[in-house]
Amino acid sequence: MKSICGHSGPIQRRAMAKAITLLESTRADHRTQGDALLTALLPHTGRALRLGISGVPGVGKSTFIEALGLYLVRQGLKVAVLAIDPSSSVTGGSILGDKTRMEQLCAEEAAYIRPSPSSGTLGGVAEKTREAMLVCEAAGYDVVIVETVGVGQSETAVHGMTDMFCVLQLPNAGDDLQAIKKGVMELADLVVINKADIDPAAATRAQAQITSSLRLLGFHGNPEHDPHNAQQWTPKVLQISALQQQGVDGFWAAVQDYRQMQSANGRLAARREKQALAWMWERIDFGLKQAFRAHPQVQALLPQMQADVAAGRIAASTAARNLLAAHMG
Amino acid sequence: MKSICGHSGPIQRRAMAKAITLLESTRADHRTQGDALLTALLPHTGRALRLGISGVPGVGKSTFIEALGLYLVRQGLKVAVLAIDPSSSVTGGSILGDKTRMEQLCAEEAAYIRPSPSSGTLGGVAEKTREAMLVCEAAGYDVVIVETVGVGQSETAVHGMTDMFCVLQLPNAGDDLQAIKKGVMELADLVVINKADIDPAAATRAQAQITSSLRLLGFHGNPEHDPHNAQQWTPKVLQISALQQQGVDGFWAAVQDYRQMQSANGRLAARREKQALAWMWERIDFGLKQAFRAHPQVQALLPQMQADVAAGRIAASTAARNLLAAHMG
Repeated sequence: MKSICGHSGPIQRRAMAKAITLLESTRADHRTQGDALLTALLPHTGRALRLGISGVPGVGKSTFIEALGLYLVRQGLKVAVLAIDPSSSVTGGSILGDKTRMEQLCAEEAAYIRPSPSSGTLGGVAEKTREAMLVCEAAGYDVVIVETVGVGQSETAVHGMTDMFCVLQLPNAGDDLQAIKKGVMELADLVVINKADIDPAAATRAQAQITSSLRLLGFHGNPEHDPHNAQQWTPKVLQISALQQQGVDGFWAAVQDYRQMQSANGRLAARREKQALAWMWERIDFGLKQAFRAHPQVQALLPQMQADVAAGRIAASTAARNLLAAHMG
Repeated sequence: MKSICGHSGPIQRRAMAKAITLLESTRADHRTQGDALLTALLPHTGRALRLGISGVPGVGKSTFIEALGLYLVRQGLKVAVLAIDPSSSVTGGSILGDKTRMEQLCAEEAAYIRPSPSSGTLGGVAEKTREAMLVCEAAGYDVVIVETVGVGQSETAVHGMTDMFCVLQLPNAGDDLQAIKKGVMELADLVVINKADIDPAAATRAQAQITSSLRLLGFHGNPEHDPHNAQQWTPKVLQISALQQQGVDGFWAAVQDYRQMQSANGRLAARREKQALAWMWERIDFGLKQAFRAHPQVQALLPQMQADVAAGRIAASTAARNLLAAHMG
């Protein structure tokens, strides 16, 4: 899958796109080359700020990311925009898939935009995006934005690979409840109320409501968010209007405050280390399950075991022990 | 671990307790006997109603369960009360561990009360409770109540083994938000506002608030709760006062409505089948991870891989592939 920007970029960008394509390949020989490439690139990664942007469809993510990207490019920064959309393999790409989106940012030399990898499971899609992020960092990009559609578990995946996780909200209380229900709100380092210009009174109400929700959620034992610790980031709620390009400077100032504070108190480094180890275990779990399902003895026994468990002829725990014995034996 | 009721019960109850103790044993020969026992019991299980009761500490779960249990015993039903408390191995049992609790229910011949198994992981604790539930069913108990502490992931485990999941709440909006945050509210088939007698006005406010929250949560694509389908259960919110023994009859009427509707529309059978298969896969996953960590090649390689990933010397996905290769090879 190529960059969605039509114009031909500098040689470095083409090499980068080629590297990402190699890492996205499922061919075994490509995978071996890809692992060697990653290991070689790794010492040159880690200097970028990794920014996750989430929000339900219609909240205005693309407009916001384009406004932010253009703002950063004007500051002399190089910006990469990646995406995680596990539905893109089905729908053909619901975010970043449309070449007419982010047209202005696309035209910038210092910007690189790539749609979601479209293969398979969320875990697989997330892995390819993580690896693409490392390539962008090694290529000298200063900010890597990872966009996610506001559905399913993709927010958790993006939170698990970024330094700062931002949730875009409409000035709408039901929306707020949905984000709490899905556990997205408690992941947020920054909540951005977009389209604030349309109804300023509603936006101000939403800001107060979400601030109070975050406080209630945070008070109940979330060790990441201790409101009594001044050396530590407390999630903030901002109003912006991406369409009017209002509030982008305030957003970026908050991001920089966050980065500075979390670097100084060691939490940024700790978060990255935790993310990398969690990523390793996630891929191990996935590989173990895959190997289990592909095992001939398991494949021979599984249909009968599943039928027996479903019909109540054998206890689930007994069936699990039988299948594990078949796999190990 | 024995029943917490001090008096000696009928022979059947002693045999039941012995069977559960066998299933709770971690000895390999006991496990083999246990599996044979489970398979023999299984045709005699499934006739009980499996009722999950959740709620934060202080909400009055024990008082409620005792009032409900006594009510059911008086109706001529046999009641078993089990518990899931993953913290009990640490704390020595924070629920059902105290012999002075549920004294009246303990004194009933038709009631059986057993504290949480205290071994290891939540998955392990849940497995033993599931198996104990099957033993109680085979022994002819009509209602099996599974109590959970309102912390961690134990609610999900109890929801995954019961026919109906009830959440006890205090008349308190922050409490409501916490349950939504933890994803507990969307699991609820029935929400019970306990201690309604203390502040009737607050209880009525809470009932309206939670009803509206449930509607908002349900509207957004939870296929289990379609408010437009009259043949299907919509989560209800009730007020009770367990201490005053008020509302227990209304609670039991709602449970029976639920059971009748979900039996008629086939959802009860479908839920049990899905639960059994999910339980099987959960135990398989656990077994795979355990075997992986115990593998000599993995144990030899893991410390270095973890250190390299944490220090950013190797990509997490590469480390995962290396470890999987060591395990398979």
